[in-house]
Amino acid sequence: MGIDYSKITEGILREDCFDPEQLGKCESIMSLGNGYLGLRSATEEHYLNETRGIFVAGTFNKFDENEVTELPNGADLTAVDIFIEGERFSLSDGKYEDYTRELNVRTGELYRSVAWTSPKGRKVKLSFFRIVSLKRLHVIAQRIEITALDEAVEVRIRSGIDGTMTNTGSQHFSDGDKRFYEKHFIQFVQTTTQSDIGFANTTAHILYVDNEKLQEEPEVFIERRKIFAGFDKRVEAGQTLAIEKYSTVYTSRDKEMEGKSLADIQEISLGACRDAEKAGYAMLKDESSAKWKEEVWDKAPIQIKGPAIDQFAILFAQYHMRLMVPKHDNRMNIGAKGLSGEGYKGPTFWDTEIFLLPYYIFTDQETARKLEEYRYLSLPGAHAKAKHNGYKGAMFPWESAWLDDGEVTPEFMDVDIVTGKPIKVWSGIIEQHITSDVAYGAWQYAVITGDEEFMERYGYELIMDTANFWASRLEKTGTDGTYHINDVVGPDEFREHVNDNAFTNYMAHWNMVKAMEYFHLLKEEKPEIFARLDEKMNLEAAYREWKDGSERIYLPKPTKEHVLPQDDRYLSCRDIDLTKYKEQEHVGGITRDFNMEQINQIQVSKQADALVLFFLLENEFPAEVKKATWEYYEKRTIHDSSLSLSTHSVLASDMGEKELAYSLFQKASMIDLGTFMGSSNAGIHAASFGGVWQCVVYGFGGVRMLDGKLRINPSLPNEWEELAFTILWKGQKLAVKVAKDLISVQNLTGTAEVEIEICGEQKSVQEELKMMM
Amino acid sequence: MGIDYSKITEGILREDCFDPEQLGKCESIMSLGNGYLGLRSATEEHYLNETRGIFVAGTFNKFDENEVTELPNGADLTAVDIFIEGERFSLSDGKYEDYTRELNVRTGELYRSVAWTSPKGRKVKLSFFRIVSLKRLHVIAQRIEITALDEAVEVRIRSGIDGTMTNTGSQHFSDGDKRFYEKHFIQFVQTTTQSDIGFANTTAHILYVDNEKLQEEPEVFIERRKIFAGFDKRVEAGQTLAIEKYSTVYTSRDKEMEGKSLADIQEISLGACRDAEKAGYAMLKDESSAKWKEEVWDKAPIQIKGPAIDQFAILFAQYHMRLMVPKHDNRMNIGAKGLSGEGYKGPTFWDTEIFLLPYYIFTDQETARKLEEYRYLSLPGAHAKAKHNGYKGAMFPWESAWLDDGEVTPEFMDVDIVTGKPIKVWSGIIEQHITSDVAYGAWQYAVITGDEEFMERYGYELIMDTANFWASRLEKTGTDGTYHINDVVGPDEFREHVNDNAFTNYMAHWNMVKAMEYFHLLKEEKPEIFARLDEKMNLEAAYREWKDGSERIYLPKPTKEHVLPQDDRYLSCRDIDLTKYKEQEHVGGITRDFNMEQINQIQVSKQADALVLFFLLENEFPAEVKKATWEYYEKRTIHDSSLSLSTHSVLASDMGEKELAYSLFQKASMIDLGTFMGSSNAGIHAASFGGVWQCVVYGFGGVRMLDGKLRINPSLPNEWEELAFTILWKGQKLAVKVAKDLISVQNLTGTAEVEIEICGEQKSVQEELKMMM
Repeated sequence: MGIDYSKITEGILREDCFDPEQLGKCESIMSLGNGYLGLRSATEEHYLNETRGIFVAGTFNKFDENEVTELPNGADLTAVDIFIEGERFSLSDGKYEDYTRELNVRTGELYRSVAWTSPKGRKVKLSFFRIVSLKRLHVIAQRIEITALDEAVEVRIRSGIDGTMTNTGSQHFSDGDKRFYEKHFIQFVQTTTQSDIGFANTTAHILYVDNEKLQEEPEVFIERRKIFAGFDKRVEAGQTLAIEKYSTVYTSRDKEMEGKSLADIQEISLGACRDAEKAGYAMLKDESSAKWKEEVWDKAPIQIKGPAIDQFAILFAQYHMRLMVPKHDNRMNIGAKGLSGEGYKGPTFWDTEIFLLPYYIFTDQETARKLEEYRYLSLPGAHAKAKHNGYKGAMFPWESAWLDDGEVTPEFMDVDIVTGKPIKVWSGIIEQHITSDVAYGAWQYAVITGDEEFMERYGYELIMDTANFWASRLEKTGTDGTYHINDVVGPDEFREHVNDNAFTNYMAHWNMVKAMEYFHLLKEEKPEIFARLDEKMNLEAAYREWKDGSERIYLPKPTKEHVLPQDDRYLSCRDIDLTKYKEQEHVGGITRDFNMEQINQIQVSKQADALVLFFLLENEFPAEVKKATWEYYEKRTIHDSSLSLSTHSVLASDMGEKELAYSLFQKASMIDLGTFMGSSNAGIHAASFGGVWQCVVYGFGGVRMLDGKLRINPSLPNEWEELAFTILWKGQKLAVKVAKDLISVQNLTGTAEVEIEICGEQKSVQEELKMMM
Repeated sequence: MGIDYSKITEGILREDCFDPEQLGKCESIMSLGNGYLGLRSATEEHYLNETRGIFVAGTFNKFDENEVTELPNGADLTAVDIFIEGERFSLSDGKYEDYTRELNVRTGELYRSVAWTSPKGRKVKLSFFRIVSLKRLHVIAQRIEITALDEAVEVRIRSGIDGTMTNTGSQHFSDGDKRFYEKHFIQFVQTTTQSDIGFANTTAHILYVDNEKLQEEPEVFIERRKIFAGFDKRVEAGQTLAIEKYSTVYTSRDKEMEGKSLADIQEISLGACRDAEKAGYAMLKDESSAKWKEEVWDKAPIQIKGPAIDQFAILFAQYHMRLMVPKHDNRMNIGAKGLSGEGYKGPTFWDTEIFLLPYYIFTDQETARKLEEYRYLSLPGAHAKAKHNGYKGAMFPWESAWLDDGEVTPEFMDVDIVTGKPIKVWSGIIEQHITSDVAYGAWQYAVITGDEEFMERYGYELIMDTANFWASRLEKTGTDGTYHINDVVGPDEFREHVNDNAFTNYMAHWNMVKAMEYFHLLKEEKPEIFARLDEKMNLEAAYREWKDGSERIYLPKPTKEHVLPQDDRYLSCRDIDLTKYKEQEHVGGITRDFNMEQINQIQVSKQADALVLFFLLENEFPAEVKKATWEYYEKRTIHDSSLSLSTHSVLASDMGEKELAYSLFQKASMIDLGTFMGSSNAGIHAASFGGVWQCVVYGFGGVRMLDGKLRINPSLPNEWEELAFTILWKGQKLAVKVAKDLISVQNLTGTAEVEIEICGEQKSVQEELKMMM
């Protein structure tokens, strides 16, 4: 009851019954979007516990000085109040049967249908269709069909634009113009209170009876922050009334609106609404669906012969990875909940580089480059943050919104309910590994794509500027001349204020070494670029800092049991029985038993960050260290982060622990897709979808970029017969197919030879290669 | 079905069935309050169309520069979510019977009871009791009883403080501290965004099973802008679970909180909550109910022997006139919707002086004086407005909020839906009669109460300073040497930009003449006060201006048919058939047929302002002018203002048109009390309650202050046998009883003789007087 998988082989996720107390789940996981706008799939009719949401990428606003910048919840365009013989249509009232709600991830269409008997006993069938166009980024289209089943009914429709929406009470908009054009189109303008972004929302309705278009002029109602249209229509028994609603959203933040007045943007919004209406719902849906095929399904097809849910899980991940990514604009990036909810407020975390970027790099180079350009364009913010904290170079913000914001992580979150004091959030101040994560992302992008032009314009500078930060960050406190990084949080957020965190130190070291490597390269091979960067950051002096720093930075050494210490204290903390938390169905169990100070004293990891380190710098550690360290931490990791499962699944594949790898993949793929109703309310878990792709392609497919080279070393789960996917490697598109004992790689582009280490053997593929495993 | 009058003889207004689409009516008309805070009677459980509201007098805030200051909707304290065996209690779901909701206006208690069968078939009886204490201004107390009727049920309670409330989408508060004290009290702090007023809201719950107190420690949930407690309790068949909820609201705007830190105020709020809980619901209710008796019912009893609804209408009016008046603080006044809703945003209009003040003056001198002091304290704002407009003296704002704000009428309201341009609101700029209304109110107060100390401290200055405005306002444009007041709106708001509006000119004249009169009085009898005011406003020079102005101001003269022209154009406009609008059930009909420009060309009045003039300056006009003017305008007045009915009823009584007087009274008394469900949604019509009292005491009771003297000239409706009421006159409390042919006046105070003109005869009453009529 609830989420239903009976149609997943058709690419359809279903909800088979409706619980008005549990609306958040489907609002989030069935959300629609196109990277420009994200629309929670709240129903047309209103319910008490609904969380309607529409978010336009990059339109950050700050409610007041006590709050952080967040993505504001725009005016609602999708609500339609329907009254049958004066009674409000609501599944809370009357009776209903034949209910279904279906998200078709292949076409991006949301469908809902139900036969409803009103409290007074009138019977109608209602069907709802909705898309956010992938072709026309500003367009939402809806179609509602109401069929009078037994007898004629009076249908009353109230539908329009509702600007009273808030982010849980925080109103981000000033009320604005309300217009009624040509006795047909209605428009509502709102402007963000602090960032001054104008939104021009337009909507229009067309009514049909049995597909015959009616020339209805609506009654128009204007209220504070609201404008809506009213229609009253008698529907005879057996007749179907259809209402099509076409809505457009344009904002002054849109790149193509730059330099335009709000009045111009209103005109454009109106024109686009007119065009959408002219096209009609069916055509809008078809063209959007075609775009989904072209842009996603044909571009990066993944096939799993195995349990149908595994196949669907990867489709579902790809669906959401398209919804969340603002690939139309390099001034924006991906939020922790994509555009599917208010959770985490919209800024970008390390999630992009470590969890999501590999998918885009390997399947859609253009999108990946946009994400990387965002980081380059954010350098002003990173410089400001470094300066503010007394460091040099680029210190990237843990949470990043506007390009020049710098840090936007809330300083405080929640409240200690006993003392009433706000609880300090340390990530924005001491979770510093984000800076090398950004450098790593740029490097990864450039190596896999071979996009040298990117490196020349942005990449070298990014890696050197981040190395500058690390050199200045080092604390020269070692009595033995070693340098340290004290008082940080690593990826394992259960441990605050640790010294010499392995992940942080090794990645800082990697960052400086990489900068040195590029120093030599540029100096020798690209003197103009060397000169340009030298002018910006005095490269010779910088080089000396990198060299000194990379040579003297303290890099935690494995114990004699080959275990890499996560930080200088972890291994000496006490061990407790973690069975209860390892087996927990939902995250957060341990924080109900212990407070943060206590957790800090226990050998327990939210996600084991030494393992994330192996994942990134796989071949810098000997096998026995990886094995011993894996065994040590895996049992102490309770996966309280949605990011942890996939990393561990990939590593488990690497370690040959097939069953564990598969069961972790299953868990990872169910984070949003599963039947637990509460956890997706505030939005989907963006990074976890990247994690699902990594489980499949990195873990089971065994694909990895190591030291700039492609390696494929598959390890198929016992439950699967075959796995097929495509990857891009330096401009060549490869189709990889892995069966039980056979692997084939086809170079679909075929314009160059691709060097691959497959199952330990060096191969070169220009056309096709098959080999037994 | 809906509003039910079956218990009105007990002082109880009922709702006999519940319509979740029509919640606003009872939320408003059954609202609770005490002048400090007003609480809409939204139900404990939530509904889609609810408009929860809690308003603290005088806590104005401005959302942004495009909006005007308004009374913000504070954090909700009364919602309680109840789940029976996991199913949300809601009258939209399942079945219910034996429903009643009852407001007892005598005790100020709201009661609701219903037997509910959940969709799953569990039966419970629920009863809800609620008061806003009249004794402890900061306290709200609730009691909920849940009885398991057939079998045991699991009851889940979620209740707390919800700060996500907005004024139709505009959030006036910054989120603040959330505290949990002693594992029992929960507290939520919020601060207005612009006016920086801190609100400390505290709440606590006590649970009982069959009256045995449980020691339950709640689970506490904290979210953005929310803190709430959770209880889960099994209730055996036949058992009753009672939940008592005690809440307190304190703000930094409270007079007694001046100089205190927000932390102090939080402590005080907590302490008051603790005290309230200690007292318990029953005692809080009893003490509040006793206060109602003492402060209202015993103080100003009014008895009508006639239709029960008439008696109830006046009780109901008195009830609301106590709710709306911030008598605890002279820095505040009454809003157009009292504290019962968002409508009109909270500021004070002429409604106070012309419609409400007489009730307070004649029944509760202390309260009336506070309202007058507010006007005196607002002089800085009035001076600023005068200066801003190029005038002298005190030009009072049409809408008044903070003392030093000056004008807060929105400059624009609504939007022309065709052009998209906001529609200009002229009242704040040219509805200037408010200034003489304020002077008139002060004069009225002082004469009736005999409060000379008020006159000396405030009154003389107020009347002279307003006269200064009028003298500077006059336009010396008459070729015959006359002075004019052009381009104004009179009380009849159907006519914008008129010249020489009779009401405005005559009242300005009155104001200047009154100032001259006081000039002489002070100069001769109170030289210190004369000296003080002379220093402030150079009285000799001012006097010359008043004299010149009052002598030369153009005062419209009656036509040869004795009709006083409302302005210089009204009588030449075209007449149309107004039957349709005269007979309309609800206001606004004409504005759907004509726009404002067209209405301006028709002889039609929203309320006839020449008649309001007679009402204020009754004995300045000869009888034949009043009669002819009344007849001329009454038929052209469509009472599109809730203020119009009562004025016309009083004048109809004066004119001897008994039936019309009574029918207008009936209409006036039904403005909020009637069964029409929509019109009270945004709040009650504050001034109309003063109007109801005026219909009764001024109209049927025939009480009037004329030229400083008391006159009683009753005219009982045929439907009434007897009317008894009390009035205060210069410190003496008089009990007046009017029967068909007998009138008696008893001087309850009896410490001085009271001179009264009764039915045309001069009488003096120190003890009691009876006379035949």
